[in-house]
Amino acid sequence: MGNSFGKNFKITIYGESHGKSIGVIIEGIPPGITLDFDLINEEMYRRRPGKDNISTTRKEKDKVLIQSGYFNDHTTGAPLCGIIENTNKKSKDYSKLKNQMRPSHADYPGYIKYKGFNDYRGGGQFSGRLTAPLVFAGAIAKQILRDKNIHVGSHILSIGTIEEKSFNTSDLDENNFERLKKEKLPTLDVALKEKMEEEILKCKEAGDSIGGVVEGAIIGLPVGLGEPLFNAFESHLAQLIFSIPGIKGIAFGEGFDLSRLPGSKGNDAYYYDREGNIKTKTNNNGGILGGLTNGMPVTYKVAFKATPSISKSQESINIKSKERINLKIQGRHDPCIVPRGLVVVEAASAIVALDLLIEGGW
Amino acid sequence: MGNSFGKNFKITIYGESHGKSIGVIIEGIPPGITLDFDLINEEMYRRRPGKDNISTTRKEKDKVLIQSGYFNDHTTGAPLCGIIENTNKKSKDYSKLKNQMRPSHADYPGYIKYKGFNDYRGGGQFSGRLTAPLVFAGAIAKQILRDKNIHVGSHILSIGTIEEKSFNTSDLDENNFERLKKEKLPTLDVALKEKMEEEILKCKEAGDSIGGVVEGAIIGLPVGLGEPLFNAFESHLAQLIFSIPGIKGIAFGEGFDLSRLPGSKGNDAYYYDREGNIKTKTNNNGGILGGLTNGMPVTYKVAFKATPSISKSQESINIKSKERINLKIQGRHDPCIVPRGLVVVEAASAIVALDLLIEGGW
Amino acid sequence: MGNSFGKNFKITIYGESHGKSIGVIIEGIPPGITLDFDLINEEMYRRRPGKDNISTTRKEKDKVLIQSGYFNDHTTGAPLCGIIENTNKKSKDYSKLKNQMRPSHADYPGYIKYKGFNDYRGGGQFSGRLTAPLVFAGAIAKQILRDKNIHVGSHILSIGTIEEKSFNTSDLDENNFERLKKEKLPTLDVALKEKMEEEILKCKEAGDSIGGVVEGAIIGLPVGLGEPLFNAFESHLAQLIFSIPGIKGIAFGEGFDLSRLPGSKGNDAYYYDREGNIKTKTNNNGGILGGLTNGMPVTYKVAFKATPSISKSQESINIKSKERINLKIQGRHDPCIVPRGLVVVEAASAIVALDLLIEGGW
Amino acid sequence: MGNSFGKNFKITIYGESHGKSIGVIIEGIPPGITLDFDLINEEMYRRRPGKDNISTTRKEKDKVLIQSGYFNDHTTGAPLCGIIENTNKKSKDYSKLKNQMRPSHADYPGYIKYKGFNDYRGGGQFSGRLTAPLVFAGAIAKQILRDKNIHVGSHILSIGTIEEKSFNTSDLDENNFERLKKEKLPTLDVALKEKMEEEILKCKEAGDSIGGVVEGAIIGLPVGLGEPLFNAFESHLAQLIFSIPGIKGIAFGEGFDLSRLPGSKGNDAYYYDREGNIKTKTNNNGGILGGLTNGMPVTYKVAFKATPSISKSQESINIKSKERINLKIQGRHDPCIVPRGLVVVEAASAIVALDLLIEGGW
Repeated sequence: MGNSFGKNFKITIYGESHGKSIGVIIEGIPPGITLDFDLINEEMYRRRPGKDNISTTRKEKDKVLIQSGYFNDHTTGAPLCGIIENTNKKSKDYSKLKNQMRPSHADYPGYIKYKGFNDYRGGGQFSGRLTAPLVFAGAIAKQILRDKNIHVGSHILSIGTIEEKSFNTSDLDENNFERLKKEKLPTLDVALKEKMEEEILKCKEAGDSIGGVVEGAIIGLPVGLGEPLFNAFESHLAQLIFSIPGIKGIAFGEGFDLSRLPGSKGNDAYYYDREGNIKTKTNNNGGILGGLTNGMPVTYKVAFKATPSISKSQESINIKSKERINLKIQGRHDPCIVPRGLVVVEAASAIVALDLLIEGGW
Repeated sequence: MGNSFGKNFKITIYGESHGKSIGVIIEGIPPGITLDFDLINEEMYRRRPGKDNISTTRKEKDKVLIQSGYFNDHTTGAPLCGIIENTNKKSKDYSKLKNQMRPSHADYPGYIKYKGFNDYRGGGQFSGRLTAPLVFAGAIAKQILRDKNIHVGSHILSIGTIEEKSFNTSDLDENNFERLKKEKLPTLDVALKEKMEEEILKCKEAGDSIGGVVEGAIIGLPVGLGEPLFNAFESHLAQLIFSIPGIKGIAFGEGFDLSRLPGSKGNDAYYYDREGNIKTKTNNNGGILGGLTNGMPVTYKVAFKATPSISKSQESINIKSKERINLKIQGRHDPCIVPRGLVVVEAASAIVALDLLIEGGW
Repeated sequence: MGNSFGKNFKITIYGESHGKSIGVIIEGIPPGITLDFDLINEEMYRRRPGKDNISTTRKEKDKVLIQSGYFNDHTTGAPLCGIIENTNKKSKDYSKLKNQMRPSHADYPGYIKYKGFNDYRGGGQFSGRLTAPLVFAGAIAKQILRDKNIHVGSHILSIGTIEEKSFNTSDLDENNFERLKKEKLPTLDVALKEKMEEEILKCKEAGDSIGGVVEGAIIGLPVGLGEPLFNAFESHLAQLIFSIPGIKGIAFGEGFDLSRLPGSKGNDAYYYDREGNIKTKTNNNGGILGGLTNGMPVTYKVAFKATPSISKSQESINIKSKERINLKIQGRHDPCIVPRGLVVVEAASAIVALDLLIEGGW
Repeated sequence: MGNSFGKNFKITIYGESHGKSIGVIIEGIPPGITLDFDLINEEMYRRRPGKDNISTTRKEKDKVLIQSGYFNDHTTGAPLCGIIENTNKKSKDYSKLKNQMRPSHADYPGYIKYKGFNDYRGGGQFSGRLTAPLVFAGAIAKQILRDKNIHVGSHILSIGTIEEKSFNTSDLDENNFERLKKEKLPTLDVALKEKMEEEILKCKEAGDSIGGVVEGAIIGLPVGLGEPLFNAFESHLAQLIFSIPGIKGIAFGEGFDLSRLPGSKGNDAYYYDREGNIKTKTNNNGGILGGLTNGMPVTYKVAFKATPSISKSQESINIKSKERINLKIQGRHDPCIVPRGLVVVEAASAIVALDLLIEGGW
């Protein structure tokens, strides 16, 4: 039962890439909020395909139609259902592709799990299209967090082997997040943007694809969000992050690099700042200790694999004829999902942060 | 509410490091199973502190006292409660440490979250001691999985900067897992064991600590375990793995390295093996696609930070007097938690695999 | 978070009486099922208002638009979302009624809970209209149960003070259930139908309303469904039944009457029937012991209060002006909700039975 | 998975009648509370068997041993685990009773569900003994509620056919609840106590048993607790109440009687009292509308069947030999479970009220 997430701010998503519509039921929005549709539209736009040269040429309007929970320009406290119609369904004959198992897509395990009845068109329920309602819910979460002075931001840490530095303290600032949101390729070091774009375009021309790493951050969270054991802040965020197609890893703070350091270098020393607030000199732990936020920025790195849809020829199988095949995946694909996936990572982060904030009674 | 995990094979854990006892209620064990206490004892022994020169000198007997759910040498189908008494509680005066916030421990966020009422002795409910009932539950899960020819294994991928190679196909074998289980420092390349031990002992002598990376694997799983979206196999495993103290990252298959490859190199090509089974030539995706198992071994890497308890002097604060302090953490600490933590990673893996197997009706 | 129910066959409902649409996301439908739209339409028709002289004159088309999870005439195994548009929204000015708290409706607690932002038109999310998606989900559950030879039926045990006898063994039969489904007022004693109809029409003419009791039954369930303690069969069914507007009580088997009998008369004696099956001579316990089904028909009685919407004058308050008011509720109301509510009771029963069947691995 | 209940104040229970111990893990107790052991002991005493002539002669000490979550005389915010050892296990040979299915007990469905491996001694996990940890958790909930000026009380509405009147407004008062708690047979009309006791003793002498009805009430709850649909206040309370062995029905307010009234008589008219508070003239709805509390006392009636254990001869079967048997249940049984069961109803009520209060952020 994979389609609900959250305890206090809860989302339930439905839909397939080429079905009639996709959508989300959002529970737990407080009553009396006037939604900021500029914010919602901006977030939907950032995720939208077909808006620039580095994403797929497939265009989706992605207009969210609110069905419930919104009345007289305010949330009612009842579940808010938002629907997005699947208007840009290509009429091409998917049925001949039905039995061709695309490498590194969910086609094969999906075929087995659903006994051949799954909607195979465009990846069906495994499609990245299902992240559109997630971004819609995330935009609402972002708005509610913003009113509590909590902000979510992210940048591209790497595209293929082109890497930039991690967030440092001075980067972790609402205004910087706003700047990053406007970028086609949000980087801290603006000089790297061009290199990354070149790398993506090179892959695109070669009919290939490339992966990358996103670094996300949440600033302004109170101390003590999360729980020890199974509802650690990391446990919640990781659960939601791994629901995003293409993600293969998540690490908090310095993550895998921290494992290489001795305790004497990796530990984050406490001090009182001038205002008497408790801070740590370093933030190797990414703002979380024992599953709880410690008041420092929560930071994490998320690895996206290269989009598996490539037009280069690949070896595979036809599951019906049981023959070996060579497959060139036609159609409109993202050469690099990272710039759009980053928006989904932010949405997931906002949803988790808000869910845990409500849990804590903030 | 952090203390339950699982839907079909469900554990609920309680306890603090220095309380009367710690324990676990396990729901979902089928009736009629004669527990393999040799297996249980072996797993408890592997996690146990104080058994060799590279772990803490603290000794715990960790005998599990079964309270319910076991009758006439068989599981009854009712919840099985196992309790471990805290017999080795040192009488030292913890109260003077109460207000000293140990860097990179949960002391500070725990103090704030629980308003100063948390049991601070030995880390309280944040203690790694809470992983003992997890290992007990994991041992039962391992036994049930073994009867379905599913096995969990792991090795140390790195200690500090000393790294070994990842699992390859020929390593992923029940007998190899059995060999690894017997080792003090389980590595694929036996020559590296000594180097890793030296590194740990060097840190121990320096009053310091060191982290590392564990690679785990589950073999024999059927195709189609897990769900798209929020109950992806990765989502479940990550949720439980991040409940283990000290873990800062998890990545599946080639993980972060996979993000550096183009799709044409990272995609796992399908083929039919001689028996007509569907396999992939590579396993960069670690046996999971679209949140579902694909029949290849499930592999993942888990990063442990260095134990934050070190006897080297550290800067910190006294939260009551609001003074800056220098702190040397006395007592018996693990210079490297990886060799013991690896057993907990395996336990968590077994619990998740069994929970999802039951979900799937296997 | 009130809008999801079920663990294995799970429904999530959204909507308000006068919003754009209402709907349900259904998870856990096995793949490969061709839906029986005749059955679905029949159930929707039975619940539909405006189809006869004893229900409201309000007409709703209640056509369910399937958005996902259904492809090439089969369920896909993905969540099936069904939407019903709210086409028959009267344009009358609800805003002047906004502050008039209708007695025994949810207006007042809803106003407080949602801080005055709830959609007050037609009861908003508290409207009986929300039971339409429940009936849709129930029809799908009924179809799946039917294929396992499990059937749900019900009759009207009383309207006001006009009572008929309870189900006896010979009534609990698939064919009898089919007969009852066709009736405007389903009773075992057909002579009582006219009396009940007279009673309802009498109330209707007086601008008043009347309540009643429904008896439901599920036949064909295996032994052992449900759990001891908190997931008793009764616990599950009661949870869902009490989500239906207007229900004030539920009792299993002989229920409250059983409390008046000594054990020697109330206990259900076991025997082997001619085929060697274990049965009980009486079924005072309504087919459930210790929270588990015992193989006898599951029977239960459900009390509906009279619809609170009446055109007779009632005393109440205006919550804004804080004045005492006299209220005559205009519009199209059911003089007796029982004949339509009974269909919802059946739907809820089917959903619970299927959810627990899947849990048990049947 | 029947052994957890609650979302914010969550209990997980384990144990069997004749196992080593029974117990409960309680999550969600706020930190910093000094437990009122007088209150806890009083509640445990009220439920305790063997304390008077109308309950079983079986004696249990029922001392709760706290394992965790309590430190320096305060709750810590961590899960509190309480254990009760099963000290009074009779050594009689249960094994010969193993295959005798006691009528109206859970023996038969339990045997089937657990494939003959269930602990059959004293009813195993189906035993009323499992309500002891529920009462312990309920006592803690009562203490927390009391500090918010919320109180739970109950009286015996009937024993067999001897009935008394329902609560009226003047009865619903903290002091009256305290008086009722002290009574062996808590009734509003003290004259009825003797008659009820006579009825119970008559059954006891005849080797028979008798059932009855308990009326419970919760006073002081704020307006708006609960949710529409599946988490209605009634849904929550009914779920927990039906986990208590022997309960066959629950009805809110006037319940089944309300179904016999026209809306014009059953509706509860609003008015402003002298302090300007909104009240209803009658409380036929038992303080709940649309699943939400409305500020009036929450009242409900709960039907207990007669204890199925009677020493009178009963027909039954031996499930192994497949023979018809006559069964006289020896041992120490309650002739009427109502006076002890009432305490469990109160505990369940307190747990539900507190869970929903925390949900609402009170």
